[in-house]
Amino acid sequence: MTGKDYKAGCPPSENDFVHDNGPAANTADEDTVNPWNVSTTSAKGVDYDKLIVRFGSNKIDKELVDRIECVSGQKPHHFLRRGIFFSHRDMHQVLDAYEKQKSFYLYTGRGPSSEAMHVGHLIPFIFTKWLQDVFDIPLVIQMTDDEKYLWKDLTLEDCHRFAVENAKDIIACGFDVNKTFIFSDLDYMGSSLEFYRNVVKIQKHVTFNQVKGIFGFTDSDCIGKISFPAIQAAPSFSSSFPQIFRGRKDVQCLIPCAIDQDPYFRMTRDVAPRIGHLKPALLHSTFFPALQGAQTKMSASEPNSSIFLTDTPKQVKNKVNKYAFSGGKDTVEEHRKYGGNPDVDVSFMYLTFFLEDDEKLEKIRQDYASGNLLTGELKKILIETLQPMIAEHQEKRKKVTDETVKQFMTPRPLKFNF
Amino acid sequence: MTGKDYKAGCPPSENDFVHDNGPAANTADEDTVNPWNVSTTSAKGVDYDKLIVRFGSNKIDKELVDRIECVSGQKPHHFLRRGIFFSHRDMHQVLDAYEKQKSFYLYTGRGPSSEAMHVGHLIPFIFTKWLQDVFDIPLVIQMTDDEKYLWKDLTLEDCHRFAVENAKDIIACGFDVNKTFIFSDLDYMGSSLEFYRNVVKIQKHVTFNQVKGIFGFTDSDCIGKISFPAIQAAPSFSSSFPQIFRGRKDVQCLIPCAIDQDPYFRMTRDVAPRIGHLKPALLHSTFFPALQGAQTKMSASEPNSSIFLTDTPKQVKNKVNKYAFSGGKDTVEEHRKYGGNPDVDVSFMYLTFFLEDDEKLEKIRQDYASGNLLTGELKKILIETLQPMIAEHQEKRKKVTDETVKQFMTPRPLKFNF
Repeated sequence: MTGKDYKAGCPPSENDFVHDNGPAANTADEDTVNPWNVSTTSAKGVDYDKLIVRFGSNKIDKELVDRIECVSGQKPHHFLRRGIFFSHRDMHQVLDAYEKQKSFYLYTGRGPSSEAMHVGHLIPFIFTKWLQDVFDIPLVIQMTDDEKYLWKDLTLEDCHRFAVENAKDIIACGFDVNKTFIFSDLDYMGSSLEFYRNVVKIQKHVTFNQVKGIFGFTDSDCIGKISFPAIQAAPSFSSSFPQIFRGRKDVQCLIPCAIDQDPYFRMTRDVAPRIGHLKPALLHSTFFPALQGAQTKMSASEPNSSIFLTDTPKQVKNKVNKYAFSGGKDTVEEHRKYGGNPDVDVSFMYLTFFLEDDEKLEKIRQDYASGNLLTGELKKILIETLQPMIAEHQEKRKKVTDETVKQFMTPRPLKFNF
Repeated sequence: MTGKDYKAGCPPSENDFVHDNGPAANTADEDTVNPWNVSTTSAKGVDYDKLIVRFGSNKIDKELVDRIECVSGQKPHHFLRRGIFFSHRDMHQVLDAYEKQKSFYLYTGRGPSSEAMHVGHLIPFIFTKWLQDVFDIPLVIQMTDDEKYLWKDLTLEDCHRFAVENAKDIIACGFDVNKTFIFSDLDYMGSSLEFYRNVVKIQKHVTFNQVKGIFGFTDSDCIGKISFPAIQAAPSFSSSFPQIFRGRKDVQCLIPCAIDQDPYFRMTRDVAPRIGHLKPALLHSTFFPALQGAQTKMSASEPNSSIFLTDTPKQVKNKVNKYAFSGGKDTVEEHRKYGGNPDVDVSFMYLTFFLEDDEKLEKIRQDYASGNLLTGELKKILIETLQPMIAEHQEKRKKVTDETVKQFMTPRPLKFNF
């Protein structure tokens, strides 16, 4: 096992998650990164190198990217080439095993807190789709509708409906129904004997002290929140899906997710060996910045911070022009003279996510930094990148029928022989 | 609603369950009564009148016993006539509704911690069977195998096996398969959408502070224990059994149980109105004393404290003769002169549970108190009461096939039209 593993009741000293005042507490000079809050004082966004040290994960370096290329035989996804997926746990081990014909599976998820998903929500799914394609492996996608019910002022029925609606957006990313199982917790908990058994096993091996340390829960939190981490942990174990893995509990899991979800999986990795399961491996992404700047991530609950998958071309244009934080200078003259700063420019950041052409992106960066490219021109490039992408997504989503969603969400064998 | 209801975060002042040092803490002069520990310093056993005040329940008085006779048209069970079921919550309300043709259902349960059940375990089932017979209503029986896994050093597989084995003993009490659903939590949670939905609803509305106050959980307890009370609460709501109640959430629940389980249902009654459910009504029984005396209850984990349903006639005889605490005097001469004390005599206490003939029991009491009946003779009466009863149970249990257990434990409609 690589990386510094989380130890029960004994978190690494540089990890400041041990506190009593809720999940947002951190020391003055540190970024806040947990499943419920991401913020930093730096316009460049979270200091991800520091986060790697704090979380005890490993940097995705050139060597690892090259190895993924070598093992998969495919050019690495631009999310890997550009450091958008920047951190990992045990990825070398996954590749070692894969080279010896030992397969693995992918697990990712989404908390369905509303009908509307924004473009940032697509990042893990776009990357997971790529991983599924190049490695040809099963994928399970957890919709944590129970979590959203527990955390938000929503009804169970709404959370479940959002899970189904969000599943349509996920399916529109192009997943193969023969390789993919999407499940709502509210449904799957009540229809899988093995899933609940794994949840109870995890719940027996994690104390309140531990979830307090990891997640910052307090005595005033409801018992549902306190025990929920076990439900997000359980899909990391292949025995939770006997219909896919035929009862095998030794299939390695790889979790692509934004790094704010890592606390769940530090806990999972701590518990795994104690209940006879493999530790899941992880690939962590950076956050998708809010339009207003990289100090925080895009949030569906703040409409003006986000570009939604339902936005019209006009809305996309207006939001980018009106809200996207600019790294340009105050006047055209100054901009021409001193150049813009792409490191804090949200439009440029978005292009690193969505503009696939490396050369074109580099040219934009240089032109912007030199002052040749004005903020308005940069925004125009972004708008012209986002508009067709979102329109295409909307087209694909329209074609996702209720029947298709049902197929994806039915527990069933996939096309793999385990 | 009658009785003093439990209030969230504000337990009655005479209730000393609010503490930080585990569930056993209580003030010096008070009995300890909680789901994991029952003890008192009095040889007469727990002071049940004080317990009624402390728990805020109501005494089952002659008026209520008479009313049950009137409404059911049956002679009250001797457990009612003799105060073995001594306390209740909302039983008048249940009878009021029943008189107006509004039916209710019964819910009781068992924690399957071993294969062996002792005679004390039969008390709630014997009484529940009587209630089912006289009121002709559905019954659900929860086997909390998940709870036992969380609390004990046992595997999931063992706990589930104990659930099935214990179900055989319960079925041997004579329940009607057309009116009774027995379920293992490990099975039912993974096979009922509605059950998990109710569990999550309850878990959202109970805080760690509350379960700390009610059950004495600490920060070192695992998150499974902390959230478990919701699972024992959920069967109190008819919507947890759509196959029986056809989705109706307004069928009143009546829970016959030993009073040490009341903390679970105080919590349930607090939560119920906040999630749109009816508060369950309760009938509480006293504890079945250990052979060594009424200071504590019979415990399956201390073999010499208990008469097991698997004991041979010889074992029954030896255990009663050797261990049953006697209220008799040290010598025959003294006993003849001063008489024995039936109030502390375990053999006499057991007869109040199992000797149905009121006149015969009263005569034994008088004879023992007067010194006419010696301890050895009293023990002989008990042995001759227990031996055929246990032999008969063993015969009935033998006839319970795996197929029968499966029938009882399959979620299905019962013979009632809701």
